[in-house]
Amino acid sequence: MLSQTIVSPADLRRACDDARAAGKRVGFVPTMGALHAGHVALVAEARRRAELVAVSIFVNPTQFGPGEDYARYPRDLYADVRQLGEAGVDIVFAPDRQAMYAAGDETRVRVSGLTDVLEGARRPGHFEGVATVVTKLLSIVGPCVAVFGRKDYQQLVVVRRMVEDLMLPVEVVGHPTVREPDGLAMSSRNRWLSPAQRERALSISRGLDSAARRFAQGERDARVLEAVAAQPMDAAGLTIEYVEASDPDSLAPVGGATGSRVLLSIACRVGSTRLIDNVVLGEDLPPLG
Amino acid sequence: MLSQTIVSPADLRRACDDARAAGKRVGFVPTMGALHAGHVALVAEARRRAELVAVSIFVNPTQFGPGEDYARYPRDLYADVRQLGEAGVDIVFAPDRQAMYAAGDETRVRVSGLTDVLEGARRPGHFEGVATVVTKLLSIVGPCVAVFGRKDYQQLVVVRRMVEDLMLPVEVVGHPTVREPDGLAMSSRNRWLSPAQRERALSISRGLDSAARRFAQGERDARVLEAVAAQPMDAAGLTIEYVEASDPDSLAPVGGATGSRVLLSIACRVGSTRLIDNVVLGEDLPPLG
Repeated sequence: MLSQTIVSPADLRRACDDARAAGKRVGFVPTMGALHAGHVALVAEARRRAELVAVSIFVNPTQFGPGEDYARYPRDLYADVRQLGEAGVDIVFAPDRQAMYAAGDETRVRVSGLTDVLEGARRPGHFEGVATVVTKLLSIVGPCVAVFGRKDYQQLVVVRRMVEDLMLPVEVVGHPTVREPDGLAMSSRNRWLSPAQRERALSISRGLDSAARRFAQGERDARVLEAVAAQPMDAAGLTIEYVEASDPDSLAPVGGATGSRVLLSIACRVGSTRLIDNVVLGEDLPPLG
Repeated sequence: MLSQTIVSPADLRRACDDARAAGKRVGFVPTMGALHAGHVALVAEARRRAELVAVSIFVNPTQFGPGEDYARYPRDLYADVRQLGEAGVDIVFAPDRQAMYAAGDETRVRVSGLTDVLEGARRPGHFEGVATVVTKLLSIVGPCVAVFGRKDYQQLVVVRRMVEDLMLPVEVVGHPTVREPDGLAMSSRNRWLSPAQRERALSISRGLDSAARRFAQGERDARVLEAVAAQPMDAAGLTIEYVEASDPDSLAPVGGATGSRVLLSIACRVGSTRLIDNVVLGEDLPPLG
């Protein structure tokens, strides 16, 4: 099957209006392209919930800080469009920067509180960029349902909060992180890893896996769970940015004893590649299942 | 005719969805209540452009700064609902604060640049509150067209910018300022004026009127036009906050010679009541026509 590729917001809006007029539910998956099996799983989830599925491919400049990897973020539109066609996507929206941020653009959407921690604390402005572009995309597409991956767990929580606060008429669905058979969370940035780095990066999911096993055995001390998760990364020589136990809903740090569910988040560097991963202990299957 | 009064966002969304499903165009007028003939004119404008007209009445707390007149802002829901019924409004939306800002609400919409001047410079956070509540209201109602008064000229420009930037599917219409027969711009805050203050407040529109006549005679020096506008207010002993000549589109201050159109804006205090007014020279009819 071939997807229809659209580059203009006006054309996309018209196509989605037409679908709705024909009685179809519209599902939406926003991406930055460089697609992998994790994205395909999000598409399949949208497909289960809607009759027309639209996917955006847009490397959103406003969610990258100075010195981050905007310029080198992988872009492979032809491969992406082919993959989305095979996945049964109806519409691929691939706007350029000007289409999403016209001259004179001055509006930003900001979610406070939830963005003060984890990625928000390390990447100032990141979630303002995310919230802004997601608002624009939802406004153009007008979907009943939008699917986000739980690999970017904080993003999912922030988008949910924003959709609820701005009263946007869309259901936000979080989809479990898709992993390689050995446990590594799928990420567009994995393609930058050398074989040796790829091997060392496995310590991330192994750490989460160890913490999940300890949690299943009854361990509830946040500091211990963080230390257990960090140990394999330390041993593999990764540069840890954070390993943090948080409340899965409020994202507030958990200092002492955890509740029956706890979010364990990791950010680290393998060489110059920054990777993140997480697991909700007491809820997700452990990374190596 | 009796309007339907709705207090829940979910009920309002359903009513507007039903109207759209029945093929009706939805028009929307957001207000803070304490309605006057200016609001009725906005409603009539919406009625000309849509088959279903919804009006919100909500004194939005986030657009008032500390020390401003949120607490004493006039509220007269029964009179408002009666007036809107007589004006042929289909739906009156009168939510309480919790309905618009639920516990945990953390999202704000901000327009930069345009909000650095005029009201934005004197009322920090004001336009963030406006942009946020308008985004919420537009999201619930989903109108084809929304009508705003030009009395709040900067608000109109900011909302237009926001709607364009966030790609909201709504046409924003600006409606000319409605004035009393003697020229005073209609405002919910006029009810606070004593008869003597009411008389002195006339100097605002008289100043704009004088400036409009000078502009019509060929005067193009921004400083002269500002001085002409300020003179009657000075004479009446009003406390002038600003009299400013600006570009009507960018709102940038005009220092020397004006173009063929120039926005002349006034903010002042009459006793403890803060009033604003404006005219676009070269475009609007002068206040006393």
